[in-house]
Amino acid sequence: ARTGDPEVVFGQGKTPGQIVAALRALHEAHPDRAILATRLSEDALAECAEHLPDAVLDSVGRTAVLGRTETRGRVAVVAAGTSDLPVVRECATTIAVFGAEPDEIVDVGVAGIHRLLAQRDRIDEADVVVAVAGMEAALPSVLGGLVGVPLIAVPTSVGYGWNLEGVTAWLATVNSCAPGVVSVNVDNGFGAGVAAARIARRTARTAE
Amino acid sequence: ARTGDPEVVFGQGKTPGQIVAALRALHEAHPDRAILATRLSEDALAECAEHLPDAVLDSVGRTAVLGRTETRGRVAVVAAGTSDLPVVRECATTIAVFGAEPDEIVDVGVAGIHRLLAQRDRIDEADVVVAVAGMEAALPSVLGGLVGVPLIAVPTSVGYGWNLEGVTAWLATVNSCAPGVVSVNVDNGFGAGVAAARIARRTARTAE
Amino acid sequence: ARTGDPEVVFGQGKTPGQIVAALRALHEAHPDRAILATRLSEDALAECAEHLPDAVLDSVGRTAVLGRTETRGRVAVVAAGTSDLPVVRECATTIAVFGAEPDEIVDVGVAGIHRLLAQRDRIDEADVVVAVAGMEAALPSVLGGLVGVPLIAVPTSVGYGWNLEGVTAWLATVNSCAPGVVSVNVDNGFGAGVAAARIARRTARTAE
Amino acid sequence: ARTGDPEVVFGQGKTPGQIVAALRALHEAHPDRAILATRLSEDALAECAEHLPDAVLDSVGRTAVLGRTETRGRVAVVAAGTSDLPVVRECATTIAVFGAEPDEIVDVGVAGIHRLLAQRDRIDEADVVVAVAGMEAALPSVLGGLVGVPLIAVPTSVGYGWNLEGVTAWLATVNSCAPGVVSVNVDNGFGAGVAAARIARRTARTAE
Amino acid sequence: ARTGDPEVVFGQGKTPGQIVAALRALHEAHPDRAILATRLSEDALAECAEHLPDAVLDSVGRTAVLGRTETRGRVAVVAAGTSDLPVVRECATTIAVFGAEPDEIVDVGVAGIHRLLAQRDRIDEADVVVAVAGMEAALPSVLGGLVGVPLIAVPTSVGYGWNLEGVTAWLATVNSCAPGVVSVNVDNGFGAGVAAARIARRTARTAE
Amino acid sequence: ARTGDPEVVFGQGKTPGQIVAALRALHEAHPDRAILATRLSEDALAECAEHLPDAVLDSVGRTAVLGRTETRGRVAVVAAGTSDLPVVRECATTIAVFGAEPDEIVDVGVAGIHRLLAQRDRIDEADVVVAVAGMEAALPSVLGGLVGVPLIAVPTSVGYGWNLEGVTAWLATVNSCAPGVVSVNVDNGFGAGVAAARIARRTARTAE
Amino acid sequence: ARTGDPEVVFGQGKTPGQIVAALRALHEAHPDRAILATRLSEDALAECAEHLPDAVLDSVGRTAVLGRTETRGRVAVVAAGTSDLPVVRECATTIAVFGAEPDEIVDVGVAGIHRLLAQRDRIDEADVVVAVAGMEAALPSVLGGLVGVPLIAVPTSVGYGWNLEGVTAWLATVNSCAPGVVSVNVDNGFGAGVAAARIARRTARTAE
Amino acid sequence: ARTGDPEVVFGQGKTPGQIVAALRALHEAHPDRAILATRLSEDALAECAEHLPDAVLDSVGRTAVLGRTETRGRVAVVAAGTSDLPVVRECATTIAVFGAEPDEIVDVGVAGIHRLLAQRDRIDEADVVVAVAGMEAALPSVLGGLVGVPLIAVPTSVGYGWNLEGVTAWLATVNSCAPGVVSVNVDNGFGAGVAAARIARRTARTAE
Ligand SMILES: Nc1ncnc2c1ncn2[C@@H]1O[C@H](COP(=O)(O)O)[C@@H](O)[C@H]1O
Ligand SMILES: Nc1ncnc2c1ncn2[C@@H]1O[C@H](COP(=O)(O)O)[C@@H](O)[C@H]1O
Ligand SMILES: Nc1ncnc2c1ncn2[C@@H]1O[C@H](COP(=O)(O)O)[C@@H](O)[C@H]1O
Ligand SMILES: Nc1ncnc2c1ncn2[C@@H]1O[C@H](COP(=O)(O)O)[C@@H](O)[C@H]1O
Ligand SMILES: [Mg+2]
Ligand SMILES: [Mg+2]
Ligand SMILES: [Mg+2]
Ligand SMILES: [Mg+2]
Ligand SMILES: [Mg+2]
Ligand SMILES: [Mg+2]
Ligand SMILES: [Mg+2]
Ligand SMILES: [Mg+2]
Repeated sequence: ARTGDPEVVFGQGKTPGQIVAALRALHEAHPDRAILATRLSEDALAECAEHLPDAVLDSVGRTAVLGRTETRGRVAVVAAGTSDLPVVRECATTIAVFGAEPDEIVDVGVAGIHRLLAQRDRIDEADVVVAVAGMEAALPSVLGGLVGVPLIAVPTSVGYGWNLEGVTAWLATVNSCAPGVVSVNVDNGFGAGVAAARIARRTARTAE
Repeated sequence: ARTGDPEVVFGQGKTPGQIVAALRALHEAHPDRAILATRLSEDALAECAEHLPDAVLDSVGRTAVLGRTETRGRVAVVAAGTSDLPVVRECATTIAVFGAEPDEIVDVGVAGIHRLLAQRDRIDEADVVVAVAGMEAALPSVLGGLVGVPLIAVPTSVGYGWNLEGVTAWLATVNSCAPGVVSVNVDNGFGAGVAAARIARRTARTAE
Repeated sequence: ARTGDPEVVFGQGKTPGQIVAALRALHEAHPDRAILATRLSEDALAECAEHLPDAVLDSVGRTAVLGRTETRGRVAVVAAGTSDLPVVRECATTIAVFGAEPDEIVDVGVAGIHRLLAQRDRIDEADVVVAVAGMEAALPSVLGGLVGVPLIAVPTSVGYGWNLEGVTAWLATVNSCAPGVVSVNVDNGFGAGVAAARIARRTARTAE
Repeated sequence: ARTGDPEVVFGQGKTPGQIVAALRALHEAHPDRAILATRLSEDALAECAEHLPDAVLDSVGRTAVLGRTETRGRVAVVAAGTSDLPVVRECATTIAVFGAEPDEIVDVGVAGIHRLLAQRDRIDEADVVVAVAGMEAALPSVLGGLVGVPLIAVPTSVGYGWNLEGVTAWLATVNSCAPGVVSVNVDNGFGAGVAAARIARRTARTAE
Repeated sequence: ARTGDPEVVFGQGKTPGQIVAALRALHEAHPDRAILATRLSEDALAECAEHLPDAVLDSVGRTAVLGRTETRGRVAVVAAGTSDLPVVRECATTIAVFGAEPDEIVDVGVAGIHRLLAQRDRIDEADVVVAVAGMEAALPSVLGGLVGVPLIAVPTSVGYGWNLEGVTAWLATVNSCAPGVVSVNVDNGFGAGVAAARIARRTARTAE
Repeated sequence: ARTGDPEVVFGQGKTPGQIVAALRALHEAHPDRAILATRLSEDALAECAEHLPDAVLDSVGRTAVLGRTETRGRVAVVAAGTSDLPVVRECATTIAVFGAEPDEIVDVGVAGIHRLLAQRDRIDEADVVVAVAGMEAALPSVLGGLVGVPLIAVPTSVGYGWNLEGVTAWLATVNSCAPGVVSVNVDNGFGAGVAAARIARRTARTAE
Repeated sequence: ARTGDPEVVFGQGKTPGQIVAALRALHEAHPDRAILATRLSEDALAECAEHLPDAVLDSVGRTAVLGRTETRGRVAVVAAGTSDLPVVRECATTIAVFGAEPDEIVDVGVAGIHRLLAQRDRIDEADVVVAVAGMEAALPSVLGGLVGVPLIAVPTSVGYGWNLEGVTAWLATVNSCAPGVVSVNVDNGFGAGVAAARIARRTARTAE
Repeated sequence: ARTGDPEVVFGQGKTPGQIVAALRALHEAHPDRAILATRLSEDALAECAEHLPDAVLDSVGRTAVLGRTETRGRVAVVAAGTSDLPVVRECATTIAVFGAEPDEIVDVGVAGIHRLLAQRDRIDEADVVVAVAGMEAALPSVLGGLVGVPLIAVPTSVGYGWNLEGVTAWLATVNSCAPGVVSVNVDNGFGAGVAAARIARRTARTAE
């Protein structure tokens, strides 16, 4: 891509065959860095497993990766629990492909604030923090008061009831009382990952 | 009122003269308990100050109270900061008039989580907690993980930018990840106060 | 849970096997009180029936309960009719698990006001009232004029036509002309049950 | 007008002079029936008082009427209280101008259901019922269960807090659990009055 | 029913067996007038065909009728075309069951205004007009300028593209430039039919 | 402008002095064609009257024009009545400045369909039709069935009651049952005028 | 059709048999010009392939065409990429049937602005430009600055995440910073095609 | 502040006296770095001019700054034109106070794409790009295809007509077709400035 970023295959709406072919072609054209495919159906993941033995597959995050990218800088991907996991994984895999090291910290929802505070040292080591949060998305605000590094919020469509398919969480992230929080579309772990990696690989702590 | 609750004058849309007259008439009819007037304009407050020397006036919460009600049980009214104060005060005054003791705990927003945790003992003494929260309204969720008593959320229209006039906060309260949170309309400190007092005056700790 | 409430398994999105395992493990860890599972699919209910002979199952409310909790105080769960029954049942079962006695009063919609008035004595015996209401959700307002105890409204997604999937009912509950009505998310019988039980078990009539 | 209805001047956005002139011209052209002007500002009402001594003015409903129309049939205009009065009056005056007899029944909100039931005989005498209702607009549903004659709901923008400027009431009226309720735009007492009079003047009881 | 109207079975969400049983029971209890069932699935219609040989079934309007009601007065049910037909039929059948005579006039959309004008005489014979209209719902406004009898608009969810599932049509009906138009919920042919029949059976032309 | 169109000054948010200066400067730079200023306040119009004696001012459409443009082709600008006139005028003036001849046809709302049909010959002479319509915006659909030339709809914020500030009209225009209707933003007479003139000056009847 | 345009069969909601019959009948009635069917299911396309050997079928645009129309003038149909292709094709086929020559220019999204600029000459040859754009729909605005001919925007429901099913794109097209952009409903390639062809066949360059 | 960022006074809703006092107190407490006040009214700016001679005031961006912060790294703040200038300035001042060097690049809207491309070298020198964009907010997407550094979008409420007060722009930014775009609330130049400075001061080019 013109901007220097890795190539990505958006899997939704493509056939398994198209995805395998695209990954293979892009990998051959860019052997020196990783190629990412996202939003893969179960069929597409199976097709990749069969035809691309070197691909690293993740059935939770629904991604496939061919090749490897050097990483620089660290991104903490923080979330409440298991329901947000697909978004966390899509984000973490994107971060790695785009050149930074992800650190997944889950099961730290704000209704159990001490579990979150217990992870403070690990979060403090990150160059960028991504806060993945569904329902009322309180997590970015609490994190915003704890860290001074760039903080990206990913609202998710996760919820126990009527939550406007993630709009509640989305509105919360752009109205966060913590200054400097930026956000992406609902469930857009990929977008947050691209942004986080771009920042982290330029801001690794040693750089300051 | 048929339900045994005190009489209330809703000041919005009434002239100062009408409000003074209504307070006076209700106070004469019910000398044994307090009468409350809410949403008073500056003019209405001035008229009350002149003509009702016994009234207790609050220009922040925009209320007037004539007479006194015995209280039983305690309600903690918790909020982030100064912008939510009008709602906090309307709520606290309503609680007192409806027969419970309010305890205002402000300046404990979630972006400074340690200030909130520092108030834990005081919050633990309450029979009911009211969480007043604007912007993304993260406070009820954090409180919901800390207390076991009934918890009422009041979303407010407070915000630094575009917040749909409180709808963001409102959606957050009904999507709270903490179980058992109930909520009222945006900025409805009065409604939350009525509900909180009804619960608290029946549940003073000795009852359990 | 930290707050002293029973443990709950949210069944939606979990496999029948996971649900049975979670119920069993939590029951062994907390043999002294009931464990609740909600939003169970037909498959999950069947798996519970086979592997958890001691569980009490409800295919209308879609719940499973293992163990028993002592109850204190009574909650009237009032609703118009059969369509709201799943929400009424989820709420009633939650109330029992969280320590209060539920009393289901259905078929009392406001378009037949005399049927509602005929149940007045039974409603008057409750320490808390939960009003479950779909469509235009007029029930909480009518009940609000009849009772003086805490009143929780549960808007439901029930309707004959276009009703914004329960938002009409939800908006109605927070704009009720009866003071002190609090509400929860659309169809959230669980949340209303948790709140109602917390209040009722502290406010049993003898306590006042 | 082509449809046989009286002529109407919509006062909003017109100058006092334009309104007086329009009323005078239409009255001369149609001396045999009443002419109605609605949504009059205070200035317009004053100008009418000065220049049209024969006009019947209503500063609450903001209307002026010149001339008289024979009436046939009766319309009950039912509402909760004083805040809805401007809409009630606009509706009642329109009914009279369009040829039926209005009967205003106010202060009968659903949170005091016995006051409504006490008016039952008077309501039963009507050929058409108009239910004017703000906030959660529960009144049309309760009335719908009491009467068998045509029932028109007018949602109003009246409310104590955040009510989407009458949309809550509007959604409630079209989702009423009582069959056969029809409705008009928010605060549209005029529209309801036109429809009610058209029906009533054709259905005076003797006709059945 | 208390209001003197016929009994109705709302078929949605009921099993075929429940529907047949309900129709049979109500018919036995009220042999003197028609019983209506609406929103029937194909299975329910088949079950009725098998077990209720006397029922009149309509697979387009998805209704079943047992018994007969005398009619008085006429209702024109006007619509643009074939897509609105299910709503037209549900409405027409309801009108007949509730005691008036329906006259279906379809294929008269406003984009072919001369076809509508060609039906003017037939429309003029009606005591009430129901305008069924999807998409931008222009039909009620054009009809409103042509007739002087009561006019009920039924917005439908019919559309070629993105139309907010009927909300566009709904908003159009309550903002009609023709005075006195009243409306019901999206696709609510039943509700419009109940209201239209109530009016028509009291206003048959001879009555005036 | 790069695209060959005339220069335009958007008056909203600019001081009268800035507007006069901008008009003068652009007129000197482009003496061969007209310069347009839109959305002028009363103050700005007065300032133009004083300092730009050659300007053609329109206080209804709130425009000022300096210079003249040759016109080719004709655009009918059709609307219901006086309330839509500001939009009609802004559109007509824009059409003239952008090089086509406008023909304003007002007072032809759909609730009086015969007045519209009476203008048919005049409408048929146009190369493009612009339909300006508020409230439920039925006009574009009726016109769409009458003409075969390009048809542009301008929804307006005009209405008697609650109309979402023009969104009702806007939704109506994009859901028109007449094929080939295109539309612009609410009240955007300018935008419709630019588009209409671009089409008309290329399609004058003689061209075909 | 009364307006001189070709006949069209809207395939959605019709059976394959109905579609084949309608195409055949209309083709016999109008042998001199093309007949179009849109929104065809796979089954309908298969039925056309079997029974209408002369039909030109497009499984991407989901259209069938019988017969041929002379064309005059050229329309550039410009879009970002493969996801918008169904809309592009529906639009292009409609243009041809309605009498102009379509030129499809895809894979020119604004995030790769040089690919768009590289097509400038081809775009400049068009008499009308249709900009098909999903997601944030930036394309019409960029094109609006490049061309002086009429420009029609078609927002599409294409997007990677939460995009309100095309409303984002739709709002963008009516708020375009480029003057004179007109737009149609989401995914309405047909409507844009009708409008574009009407303009183009009157404006072939030689005409100016 | 706990996070190491400078102190900020949010001026909205505060009196001029409160603002001057707050700036003075914070400046004395933190003499080594700049203090920022935002959203100042004209009165507040005048009061600052009188009492804080050392303050740097900006009446367009409505900010006051006391003291100085060392800067590291550069942020390009890019926007279409004069209407977005208040947001651009608030953002640029915030960037400087939070420790990076802002570079304002305005008058480069996408409808004049060559003016934007002409600024490419200057944009390429930035460590972070902030795209400020109203109306349809196409600018972030075009920039996203041109740069590889972190990109923050600020939707603004600027528009010529009905734009939902910035929601159109906001939706556009989170649906951008350019990967890795993050965004903040409508008109929130402050929030974007905080985020941009945090990134830029860690990523000055030499760091990579
Ligand atoms: N029906 C329900 N609606 C909303 N929340 C629920 C429901 N049932 C359980 N929960 C919540 O879900 C939590 C358990 O979620 P999980 O850990 O995913 O099983 C409980 O602690 C409750 O807070
Ligand atoms: N209060 C009202 N609300 C809605 N429509 C009204 C009202 N009063 C008058 N109208 C309508 O306005 C028309 C007259 O409008 P105009 O010609 O502008 O005076 C009448 O024929 C009625 O249809
Ligand atoms: N009434 C109007 N509505 C929408 N856009 C307009 C209007 N008048 C002018 N414009 C646009 O505003 C631009 C000039 O804006 P400005 O440079 O701020 O004066 C013109 O090129 C048009 O695109
Ligand atoms: N223009 C702004 N927009 C949004 N938030 C702001 C703005 N200016 C200041 N803030 C926030 O307001 C806080 C100070 O608020 P206060 O204590 O009320 O003065 C700062 O820490 C920022 O988080
Ligand atoms: Mg969360
Ligand atoms: Mg808060
Ligand atoms: Mg109900
Ligand atoms: Mg009411
Ligand atoms: Mg229609
Ligand atoms: Mg109109
Ligand atoms: Mg695009
Ligand atoms: Mg822009």
